[in-house]
Amino acid sequence: MQVSAPEFSMIARHFRPLAGPEGLDLLDDAALLTPPPGAQLVLAADAMVAGVHFLPDDPPETIGRKLLRVNLSDLAAMGATPLGYLMTIALTPETDDSWLAGFVAGLAEDQAEFGLRVLGGDTVSTPGQLTLSLTILGQVPPGAALTRAGARPGDDLWVSGRIGDGWLGLRAARGEIPDPDGALARRYRLPEPRLALGLALRGLARAAMDVSDGLLQDASHLCRAGDCAAVVEAALVPVSDATAPVTALVTGGDDYELLFAAAPEDRQAVLEAGLAARTPVTRIGRFTQGPARVNLTDQMGADITPAKLGWSHL
Amino acid sequence: MQVSAPEFSMIARHFRPLAGPEGLDLLDDAALLTPPPGAQLVLAADAMVAGVHFLPDDPPETIGRKLLRVNLSDLAAMGATPLGYLMTIALTPETDDSWLAGFVAGLAEDQAEFGLRVLGGDTVSTPGQLTLSLTILGQVPPGAALTRAGARPGDDLWVSGRIGDGWLGLRAARGEIPDPDGALARRYRLPEPRLALGLALRGLARAAMDVSDGLLQDASHLCRAGDCAAVVEAALVPVSDATAPVTALVTGGDDYELLFAAAPEDRQAVLEAGLAARTPVTRIGRFTQGPARVNLTDQMGADITPAKLGWSHL
Repeated sequence: MQVSAPEFSMIARHFRPLAGPEGLDLLDDAALLTPPPGAQLVLAADAMVAGVHFLPDDPPETIGRKLLRVNLSDLAAMGATPLGYLMTIALTPETDDSWLAGFVAGLAEDQAEFGLRVLGGDTVSTPGQLTLSLTILGQVPPGAALTRAGARPGDDLWVSGRIGDGWLGLRAARGEIPDPDGALARRYRLPEPRLALGLALRGLARAAMDVSDGLLQDASHLCRAGDCAAVVEAALVPVSDATAPVTALVTGGDDYELLFAAAPEDRQAVLEAGLAARTPVTRIGRFTQGPARVNLTDQMGADITPAKLGWSHL
Repeated sequence: MQVSAPEFSMIARHFRPLAGPEGLDLLDDAALLTPPPGAQLVLAADAMVAGVHFLPDDPPETIGRKLLRVNLSDLAAMGATPLGYLMTIALTPETDDSWLAGFVAGLAEDQAEFGLRVLGGDTVSTPGQLTLSLTILGQVPPGAALTRAGARPGDDLWVSGRIGDGWLGLRAARGEIPDPDGALARRYRLPEPRLALGLALRGLARAAMDVSDGLLQDASHLCRAGDCAAVVEAALVPVSDATAPVTALVTGGDDYELLFAAAPEDRQAVLEAGLAARTPVTRIGRFTQGPARVNLTDQMGADITPAKLGWSHL
């Protein structure tokens, strides 16, 4: 956390309580972490820009937590458990003390919920958009990590939770659709990383990833990595709102559910893993022979694949 | 590296060659790294914003390298050796293929020079300034890391290289001062992380950090962490340009030299460490009893401490 004289005390006062001894109180050039003996490290990084990945008027309490949860979701997809994180923040001149206090309070809540602490970071100023970047560290036993590669023709395609909350949540947060209890907007702002499910799927899922860019697009990544095709049955997808257009929900992104392949003989084991992790899991299709592509079919088996499979960050 | 369909191939084509097997070809949710047995991990993160930390028209070849070197300098200050890094980039709509090609070519050069590879990252779009964030991982034998805490009254204060290149380099890059062979601008754009010296100072320096915010300000951090005071003798500081005002050079920042404390009985050993690391080291002052503060003195011993000790990022 390299910040300079006049602002040092303000930033440090907010962030230092988030750090543990391995973060050296954020006073040093770097953090010192002794990794658990024998573990493999899992490392992921994501960035968020105000107006692109979150709404500029989102409550400060949720902004850092969203980025942390998006990164925790990457750990979940690998079957990893969290060790810590580093965060850089490019602050705008408008960012004041009360915004920082809220931002840090939100992070503190999630640090407690997910059992990790900040290890370090950097705070700089920007004349542009508030921009956050987070690197997360997790661990897995050697060889136990789930990866995107490994799906085979004949495998089932599964998804956790519900698909569409991210897309509906964004619309709700923008005031475009009704959201009387705020539950949808909350899902958009605070996705639920499926860490327990990722753990339970170690040794069971043949391939896994999290749904960030849209169910169909992310399924196509599993196809590419496994060199096979996939069929998703629209009627099987657990959607958030049966009245919303299914093609919007399966391409909408920001769901942060786990999408994974498992052998058909492991159906019961997968359902039990979902129960153990208290996370619903639903079989929504299968992998097939053929060049890497994903097709969405309706109840009659007709192809209803949309032209655009997902959401683009750029 | 989470990027989406249409741009995926462009970004991936540029970045994938930078990754090794531990980066899973940047195709997965995260990287998998087996840490060297018994090592402690050293972790640091820094961010840079166009127009704040580098000039928007700096050559793309130098921009990523500067951020990488700033982070490598954090490892050097801890006596650590590099393991890998993750980088997030918020690209502006103006960033084109040739800019990316230059950016990645610069990184490739430094990856080869410093012996590390990219482990992962994220590429997003921003309507604001080009913004980069980098997290670096390094390693040290357990307990061998140098930290900012440890300077004691009576210790010598040392610095590597020359002080002022960063400040003069920025002015040269802006065209404000002559720089016939471009050497000063190059120093600003491509600082030299003192990794070999950091290694050589393990077990020898009692406290260390790198000079990023200005020699005096960073010396005050060593004082605070060591609960002592320090005196810097202006005439001893190895400055880049004897005709420039010394107070500008010792408060200018961006030098990325190592600033460290060592016992007076180790003077010869420190000089030998500098020789072994092919890095000049100069004794510039001493730590004293008293509340944490730094004083700059002239050759007569008179106090010439400037009001502002360094450079502020915010």
